[in-house]
Amino acid sequence: MMNTPLLLSSMIERAEQYFPGKQVISRTLGGIQRFTYKEIAERTRRLASALEKLGMQKGDKVGTFAWNHHRHLEAYFAVPCRGALLHMVNIRLSPEHLVYVINHAEDKILLVDEDLLPLIERIQEQLETVECYVIMSDQKEVPNTTLPNAFSYEALLDVGDPTMPFLHDLDENTPAGMCYTSATTGMPKGVIYTHRSLVLHTLSLGLADSFGIREEDVIMPVVPMFHVNAWGMPYAGTWFGATQVYPGPGLSPAVIAQLIEEEKVTVTAGVPTIWLGLLKELEENPRDVSSIRGLVSGGSAAPKGMIRAFIEKHQIPFYQGYGMTETSPLVSLSKLTTTRAEKEKDQAIDIIATQGLVVPGLEVRVVNEDGDVPRDSKTMGELIIRGPWIADSYYRDDRSKNTFKDGWLYTGDIAVQDEHGYIQITDRTKDLIKSGGEWISSVNLENALMSHEAIFEAAVIAVPHEKWQERPVACIVLKDAYKQKITKEEIIDYLKPQFAKWWLPDEIIFMDEIPKTSVGKFLKRELREQLKDFFVKP
Amino acid sequence: MMNTPLLLSSMIERAEQYFPGKQVISRTLGGIQRFTYKEIAERTRRLASALEKLGMQKGDKVGTFAWNHHRHLEAYFAVPCRGALLHMVNIRLSPEHLVYVINHAEDKILLVDEDLLPLIERIQEQLETVECYVIMSDQKEVPNTTLPNAFSYEALLDVGDPTMPFLHDLDENTPAGMCYTSATTGMPKGVIYTHRSLVLHTLSLGLADSFGIREEDVIMPVVPMFHVNAWGMPYAGTWFGATQVYPGPGLSPAVIAQLIEEEKVTVTAGVPTIWLGLLKELEENPRDVSSIRGLVSGGSAAPKGMIRAFIEKHQIPFYQGYGMTETSPLVSLSKLTTTRAEKEKDQAIDIIATQGLVVPGLEVRVVNEDGDVPRDSKTMGELIIRGPWIADSYYRDDRSKNTFKDGWLYTGDIAVQDEHGYIQITDRTKDLIKSGGEWISSVNLENALMSHEAIFEAAVIAVPHEKWQERPVACIVLKDAYKQKITKEEIIDYLKPQFAKWWLPDEIIFMDEIPKTSVGKFLKRELREQLKDFFVKP
Repeated sequence: MMNTPLLLSSMIERAEQYFPGKQVISRTLGGIQRFTYKEIAERTRRLASALEKLGMQKGDKVGTFAWNHHRHLEAYFAVPCRGALLHMVNIRLSPEHLVYVINHAEDKILLVDEDLLPLIERIQEQLETVECYVIMSDQKEVPNTTLPNAFSYEALLDVGDPTMPFLHDLDENTPAGMCYTSATTGMPKGVIYTHRSLVLHTLSLGLADSFGIREEDVIMPVVPMFHVNAWGMPYAGTWFGATQVYPGPGLSPAVIAQLIEEEKVTVTAGVPTIWLGLLKELEENPRDVSSIRGLVSGGSAAPKGMIRAFIEKHQIPFYQGYGMTETSPLVSLSKLTTTRAEKEKDQAIDIIATQGLVVPGLEVRVVNEDGDVPRDSKTMGELIIRGPWIADSYYRDDRSKNTFKDGWLYTGDIAVQDEHGYIQITDRTKDLIKSGGEWISSVNLENALMSHEAIFEAAVIAVPHEKWQERPVACIVLKDAYKQKITKEEIIDYLKPQFAKWWLPDEIIFMDEIPKTSVGKFLKRELREQLKDFFVKP
Repeated sequence: MMNTPLLLSSMIERAEQYFPGKQVISRTLGGIQRFTYKEIAERTRRLASALEKLGMQKGDKVGTFAWNHHRHLEAYFAVPCRGALLHMVNIRLSPEHLVYVINHAEDKILLVDEDLLPLIERIQEQLETVECYVIMSDQKEVPNTTLPNAFSYEALLDVGDPTMPFLHDLDENTPAGMCYTSATTGMPKGVIYTHRSLVLHTLSLGLADSFGIREEDVIMPVVPMFHVNAWGMPYAGTWFGATQVYPGPGLSPAVIAQLIEEEKVTVTAGVPTIWLGLLKELEENPRDVSSIRGLVSGGSAAPKGMIRAFIEKHQIPFYQGYGMTETSPLVSLSKLTTTRAEKEKDQAIDIIATQGLVVPGLEVRVVNEDGDVPRDSKTMGELIIRGPWIADSYYRDDRSKNTFKDGWLYTGDIAVQDEHGYIQITDRTKDLIKSGGEWISSVNLENALMSHEAIFEAAVIAVPHEKWQERPVACIVLKDAYKQKITKEEIIDYLKPQFAKWWLPDEIIFMDEIPKTSVGKFLKRELREQLKDFFVKP
């Protein structure tokens, strides 16, 4: 068989050749813009040429600091298809972490959104490797900035070569992309994706039983493009010729609902916080969202109440995906197999609320000190993963050895498996509550709490306890309509039938907001810090 | 990223782990048998163990000589998942070719269907490398045979190890399978498939825009398992957890129709001759075939009249695929993109009758001496293909250099491309009719002829001609109801509005049957031989 390498160039070239008239719809500061794939491909070639004029060479790192829009998509291909590496910098990192990741990756060129300039300007003097900045804006003038060596993206494209070739002779193991984890402790850790891993991951997104992205789709990645390759959607959308909608900066639930209705979005993906917001929005301002054939939630567990609302109230097919920066990210998806759909119709929501079945191409196991745990839906173990789009190390990072062992990725996620092999994450290893020698899953308690009609968000954390070692405390945000109208006792009573007595939280704390990480996950570390002395007698 | 190899073991292990209760339905001489994937996987492990006891080692070739059934499926995995190579011998080859391919491949063990024993017995003394025979039968006794060292498949399984592991540490470029082309001239040429090429090809079958094989499917490969991996369906069905139906020996249109109805088949694939037969059967003995969501035809061009009948009369979604032994085989599929479905609704049948759009992962070009031909639907050129599941040579064969040039496979097929990049094969290079310095496509004439209501089959060949070099002659099989009731002139009149005058066949010859190759393709070489003196004046 031919040893043709698996390369990202095949994706953009396929869109250019076979879907030249199909659209990429991009919401920028200037409003909605529409480009054909013919235009996107030409602009991508121009960008590749412009970046090489600025000094980009094979193996160099080019950073992006940007929202989801067409220019970011162009960078997704222009950089790796010339043998360089795209570092998608998380715009929500703290200044300290930003400096760390840009210096650690050794980014040579940084593409920065106009409205995000202040975030880079204030750290600019600490950036050790960046030689120039390309400002992404609808205008051709470089905006006022204190950044040195700043160029206008659009002006560079004007003089770029529209026929710049994409490389076909790269080794498929050439690094193509890079993301850092949004660490809750320590500095972020870098993961490098290769052409091979991204191509294989994209094939998995195209499988009929996975996202099944196809030409007739209108896909909208709400998940940021700086967050694990926007879950691979930009690659899949381009390769398979789907229409793509990029929702841009200043994203609100209202904007998301409007784009779904107006562009007839069929597949969209994002974190649960986004979908909680959309649900609220749809209840307040109904929209026709019937075009959606798949709404995918990932990044953290989706509350069952939310899943039920999407499926039963809005007739929107809802799936939960599981993955992480280290896994490209798609590992599993909670679709019902025919066997389960027939036999467990009434449990459909419960099944969709799991992390689902591993996609073809990867292997997962749930292990504890005795080896693989039984598939009994209750024995907890750590989820470990192996496969061709799973990282084998962190980029230049001594912490690799804690996570990558014996050829497997140790996820740090505690899971159970049911008899069908569906995974359910019950906790992060570090969020488990160890009470009197037994484990209590914070996630199970949170899911139960968030299925209560009065509760908008809930985070359950372990608080040090003299007698029991740790005890659970629940931090709760009530929906506006329920504020001051429900008591702690009512909430505990709601939990009682669902859990053993010793699992029940010792305390309910009402809050206005749960602190979150840059990508919308609960920042439990901060809650634990706030409440660490809660059980300490004065 | 992890350097996890792409291996066939991941497919059978996934079915075993996640779809243990789903079924493989197998029609053998003994009737319909049903196995779960759990049973199939265990039997596959036993088979692997039994074959090693018989001497199978890594790198050895094990041949199969069999119909489509569960035992053949077991061999599809048992052999390569232990590092050996499965040679799927075409049971329809001539004795001379059979001897050639088995000796040329150096098959060490041969698995033979009970009812096919006579075909092997009569050549047995000429087989130089086969050390033993395993007879595939529902019985555990070895049937009467003159073959030496003959074992019973089922008896071997009884003493095989049900826990035999599949290998995970093979290089992904390890040879896994082998088929020989059904040559019309010269000896058959061997193509070796690797684990990597088969895994990537299988992913392409799972893509939503391709076959889209998924867990809820009931797939039935009618295309023989000795014909280019049954187009990859056994791999896809297993990996993605679909129910599989293997139609076995003595296949008739009535059996196919019955299996579709009774097993609720959703996807099936085979050559046009099979579907012509099914169409006739459905007209004479109606069946409920509404379960089919995709009927795929390939191997040779499907007549438009047949496509129209399936789509319009029977509401069966019909697709034409294109591929060959050298391409694993899937290269392209004639599905309508949304753009075309909207704008060219009335031409849908015409579009489905093309060879369609190349699948993601491969590159195709249509070239003549001036380079790539324009996408104008009329300029002909040779179709060339590149990609990771395309052969780079024939196995130990000097003829490789005629077909594999500059990293591309030269298919020998003459094609045009339309503006959307859909390929249409207009002829084989060797079947083109060169008349007065211009090219006439035999396939276009055949398609037009076969759309006539009276015509069952038509083959158009080039016959040597003193003045014009070559002229077309049409060989026609009429439908029973029309025999003796239609004249040559009526047929020529039917063609007139569709072609330039000089394209019209000089003669129509009515036949009872068109000679065919072992896989149902027209054997034009034989027609050309019969008619070579047609225009020679006595």
